[in-house]
Amino acid sequence: MTTPTHVVSAGADLFADAVAEQAVAVSRVDWRPPMAGTESDLAAVAGDPLRRDANERALAAMLGVTAHLVDVAPASEVLGLEEGQFLHAGPPIAWDRASGPLRGALMGGAALEGLVEDPEDAVALFEQGTAVSLEPCHHRRAVGPMAGVVTPSMWMFVLEDLATGARTHCSLNEGLGKVLRYGAYGPEVLTRLRWMREVLGPLLQRAVRATVGSSGPVDVTGILTQMLQMGDEAHNRNRAGTLMLLRDLAPAMVTSGADATFPGSDVADALRFIGGNDHFFLNLAMPACKLALDAARGIEGSTMVVAMARNGTDFGIQVAGTGDEWFTGPAQLADGLFLGDYGPDDANPDIGDSAITETAGIGGFAMATAPAIVRLVGGSVPDALATTRRMHEITLGENPRWSVPVLEFQGVPSGIDVSRVCRTGILPQINTGMAGKQAGVGQVGAGLVTPPAEIFPQALAALAARARGRR
Amino acid sequence: MTTPTHVVSAGADLFADAVAEQAVAVSRVDWRPPMAGTESDLAAVAGDPLRRDANERALAAMLGVTAHLVDVAPASEVLGLEEGQFLHAGPPIAWDRASGPLRGALMGGAALEGLVEDPEDAVALFEQGTAVSLEPCHHRRAVGPMAGVVTPSMWMFVLEDLATGARTHCSLNEGLGKVLRYGAYGPEVLTRLRWMREVLGPLLQRAVRATVGSSGPVDVTGILTQMLQMGDEAHNRNRAGTLMLLRDLAPAMVTSGADATFPGSDVADALRFIGGNDHFFLNLAMPACKLALDAARGIEGSTMVVAMARNGTDFGIQVAGTGDEWFTGPAQLADGLFLGDYGPDDANPDIGDSAITETAGIGGFAMATAPAIVRLVGGSVPDALATTRRMHEITLGENPRWSVPVLEFQGVPSGIDVSRVCRTGILPQINTGMAGKQAGVGQVGAGLVTPPAEIFPQALAALAARARGRR
Repeated sequence: MTTPTHVVSAGADLFADAVAEQAVAVSRVDWRPPMAGTESDLAAVAGDPLRRDANERALAAMLGVTAHLVDVAPASEVLGLEEGQFLHAGPPIAWDRASGPLRGALMGGAALEGLVEDPEDAVALFEQGTAVSLEPCHHRRAVGPMAGVVTPSMWMFVLEDLATGARTHCSLNEGLGKVLRYGAYGPEVLTRLRWMREVLGPLLQRAVRATVGSSGPVDVTGILTQMLQMGDEAHNRNRAGTLMLLRDLAPAMVTSGADATFPGSDVADALRFIGGNDHFFLNLAMPACKLALDAARGIEGSTMVVAMARNGTDFGIQVAGTGDEWFTGPAQLADGLFLGDYGPDDANPDIGDSAITETAGIGGFAMATAPAIVRLVGGSVPDALATTRRMHEITLGENPRWSVPVLEFQGVPSGIDVSRVCRTGILPQINTGMAGKQAGVGQVGAGLVTPPAEIFPQALAALAARARGRR
Repeated sequence: MTTPTHVVSAGADLFADAVAEQAVAVSRVDWRPPMAGTESDLAAVAGDPLRRDANERALAAMLGVTAHLVDVAPASEVLGLEEGQFLHAGPPIAWDRASGPLRGALMGGAALEGLVEDPEDAVALFEQGTAVSLEPCHHRRAVGPMAGVVTPSMWMFVLEDLATGARTHCSLNEGLGKVLRYGAYGPEVLTRLRWMREVLGPLLQRAVRATVGSSGPVDVTGILTQMLQMGDEAHNRNRAGTLMLLRDLAPAMVTSGADATFPGSDVADALRFIGGNDHFFLNLAMPACKLALDAARGIEGSTMVVAMARNGTDFGIQVAGTGDEWFTGPAQLADGLFLGDYGPDDANPDIGDSAITETAGIGGFAMATAPAIVRLVGGSVPDALATTRRMHEITLGENPRWSVPVLEFQGVPSGIDVSRVCRTGILPQINTGMAGKQAGVGQVGAGLVTPPAEIFPQALAALAARARGRR
């Protein structure tokens, strides 16, 4: 018997360790068995003749979209939202199963719309359910961070793929702390939302329209490219992105803003509000990601995830090859860092449409480019680098426009592949804010979270059924 | 004879390689002999009883300074600069030895001041030398990027250490391409400088004074802290810094700017000019570094470098323990990337006071935090990481305020130690823009450069002489 000079060890470390102890060179290959019960569906999907081409088309469609900021306008106008209609983050849900932060945001939204005077009175309104209705943002070409509640009078960013005219939408970011999207609905929350409605929204509309008419609409995808070179991963760090947006809109805010209706002090307040909120750009990053992913919807045979979204109770995904079907499981609790005296017992499970950023390859998938994020969401710098590398194992490709300098300009891992997730057991890594589980509390922390594992075998089963049906 | 189980190898790889081939574990220690002829001076300085404490004080003094932007005002007012007086970058130099870009900038400066109509006519003025005089910026509590030419009517940023009232100054950044600091002096250069004098300077003065009176002066050191988490090394990348300055000044520019003298369109132009020039903040980073380093001047026994500066002909350093003496040698050519059709033959040797950033631990010393910089100055991402690690070998300590996320938040290497440079032979790494060697050309590229090695043994000899004299 000859001694091997080199051993390749796949999977568990036990064998590799034993070999290494015998002074034989060993290359460790990270391998895990597929998720339980997925073998037959994996085989069916692997054998689907449409799959390879469909996935190439889905990835190319996503990577081909450039999002521009073409307008800012009320949700009633651009989404056709009518009195009593409320949008929310995540897959569909009714009031009876809604989490605390979603309930709190809906209550505040009802007060903002004048349906009730006191937000607490809105509980009866939603329990009765005749004068109000709930619908996911995603069903109206929109996304919303955290609770993601959108009401008719809220102003929305309007993003467009100029090549196709496709559009997506997102509300204006309120800042941090006690804010509606984290489920707070106190007087300071409503006062801020009213100022955003009466002053910020109209000023932004003027500035955006003036910019569109002069230098052209702001290239949101281009700002994302720059942000990734500036320490932002565009989910929980949007500092550079916010500053670039401010840079691009400030001149038009000065020339188109100040007049008889809005004095210079209003313009200055608006500049201060945007500049004082490092997360302001998140509400442009999210619809830019949705715009890209929407281009990949409805491609038969594609196993690429086109949406990950949470309503605070359920985590749902949609897949390019399975139409508008949601595959859902229980939203998980994030592991992370807490604000002030808050702790794990205060946190609501994962909530928000913001995981659309990870679905598009940024956020948790781009943590390597934003090592400072670990101070907010926990973990270590080596973890952040390893996370981006690990996500390449479950994605279809890289995004050449969105590169990570410290990984020698490698593109971010893009296009989550349901098959690869099931085959490796590696779950998408999301970084996220944490809302208090009681309505009215607001933000309690930030951390790292994954989807519930079972939704990927669910989606795989649906893909396999379609593949078998097509034979 | 027993076989060693572990060998520590210092210096050349030959021995280590031989040991490794015999399957013995080897730890390699990077060691090089001291610079030639420095042994005796190194011993004298090492034995100086003042040295350890003096260096601790010098480093602490530098790290203790916080720079705030307290005013913007003409050089005639804040530096007492009179007609015919010109400041320039680097150690002292006269017209006859001045490089092309310095000559070009002086010629343009003379035209800006109305001493001549046509910049070409200024050659005679400087050759004659009776109506004009040259002096280093550093001799007037100022710094200037590239040629660093300052004339009486140019507006200066005024930075102050609020704890001591100490101040430093720098002109306003003109942008890239055909600009005075790179030696260009064409009509477009002078037109821009006149607009900066008539519009930008006064608007910035109003905004800075309004900010000082309301929210307090802008914390330039604090912005530098943030920049280092946002991919800027604050010498050749100042993108995030510029955006943060814009954020901090824009509201006051709106409220204090627009009036009968300056219409809103002037304010918008100023916002566009700042936002359109990623290097605008360099002219605040530099005087902030000088303010910190000036606090360490004149500490007997300290071997810490307090200035590195180049005039395009000579590279000079000043050291905490040797007063205002300059130690100079020939400025080197940078190795880097060229714009358009320019090549190495077009480049002037190293020029500018901007190496004050490296002297303070950022710029080339902080390249690890700005991996995208390699696309501008050349080299690879691993080189950038290695450079910051290597600079720790020649510095007295780290700056806890200025940390590098990707190096697990290690502080930047701070306080260049003449002794360590001579003992290791490792030269400070500077990244820099490259000016065309012909007056009038402008920028031709950007790259990496070091000081001429011989200036460190020169400084060491002066330190040793003082130490011996004190015995």
